[in-house]
Amino acid sequence: MTVTEGTAARPLSPSDPRIEPWRAFLQAHARITRRLDEELRAEHDLSLAEYDALLTIADAPDRRIRMRQLADRVILSKSGVTRLIDRLVLDGLVQRDACLSDARGAEAVLTPAGMDRLRHASRTHLRGIDEHFLAALEPEDLSAIQRAMRAVAERAGADSDG
Amino acid sequence: MTVTEGTAARPLSPSDPRIEPWRAFLQAHARITRRLDEELRAEHDLSLAEYDALLTIADAPDRRIRMRQLADRVILSKSGVTRLIDRLVLDGLVQRDACLSDARGAEAVLTPAGMDRLRHASRTHLRGIDEHFLAALEPEDLSAIQRAMRAVAERAGADSDG
Repeated sequence: MTVTEGTAARPLSPSDPRIEPWRAFLQAHARITRRLDEELRAEHDLSLAEYDALLTIADAPDRRIRMRQLADRVILSKSGVTRLIDRLVLDGLVQRDACLSDARGAEAVLTPAGMDRLRHASRTHLRGIDEHFLAALEPEDLSAIQRAMRAVAERAGADSDG
Repeated sequence: MTVTEGTAARPLSPSDPRIEPWRAFLQAHARITRRLDEELRAEHDLSLAEYDALLTIADAPDRRIRMRQLADRVILSKSGVTRLIDRLVLDGLVQRDACLSDARGAEAVLTPAGMDRLRHASRTHLRGIDEHFLAALEPEDLSAIQRAMRAVAERAGADSDG
């Protein structure tokens, strides 16, 4: 772990105007994820965290993934991933299997019903991204956001993941 | 509720390159909130959600707020806010009081110990924002992010909150 430096020699003040973009970022994330969650629940009886888990399993080879890897890869609700999978198993969307290569490990496998639900739900989800995110942004915002967000993700993840 | 239109007449495709800024946004948020959470836990035994709740109470008049308003205003962990406050009460950082104007309502009040913990923790939190967010961004990114994120927050919140 290396010592990382902030942008200024002096500590950041809570009244610094550079806090505003940070607040806007948090607020935008909270509002849009709440909105996407409401839409998925209303139209497909799925939370956004459940959708995220189903998509993560679907993207894995053979649509199966070890529970520990799943917890690492999902973006939402890392802490509650075991309970979340329990609910998806009860609903018949996911099956819990012994790991093929290691009998002590457990894997989550997408069922045909799970694939079907994910496929339908993805229309709602993509429509939501289009309506609430893309439609709010100018084309030049998109490239600036992509660049800036990747820089933040890389910097914030640098010591944590390594 | 009005009908909102997306950016295109055709549904958004999952392979559309405009999905990339969206993924970068989610990834940046996940990484930086995880990082800030780790730092607050390590240095102050507080989660980021607990910090968010303490700050929300501290910003209310007389440092007291009705539980329902608190649940509306916190940005993280809206669903678990009751349990979160229970923990802060156990730690002596928050006190649960009868509401001054309505005996049936409950209010959360910041204790002097809570104010003290918040004040110390805010140094860690502001240092984290500086190091992991501001230091990753160019000055021109900041104004673009502020404008774009406000537009997203406004659009995504428009029907939900209204």
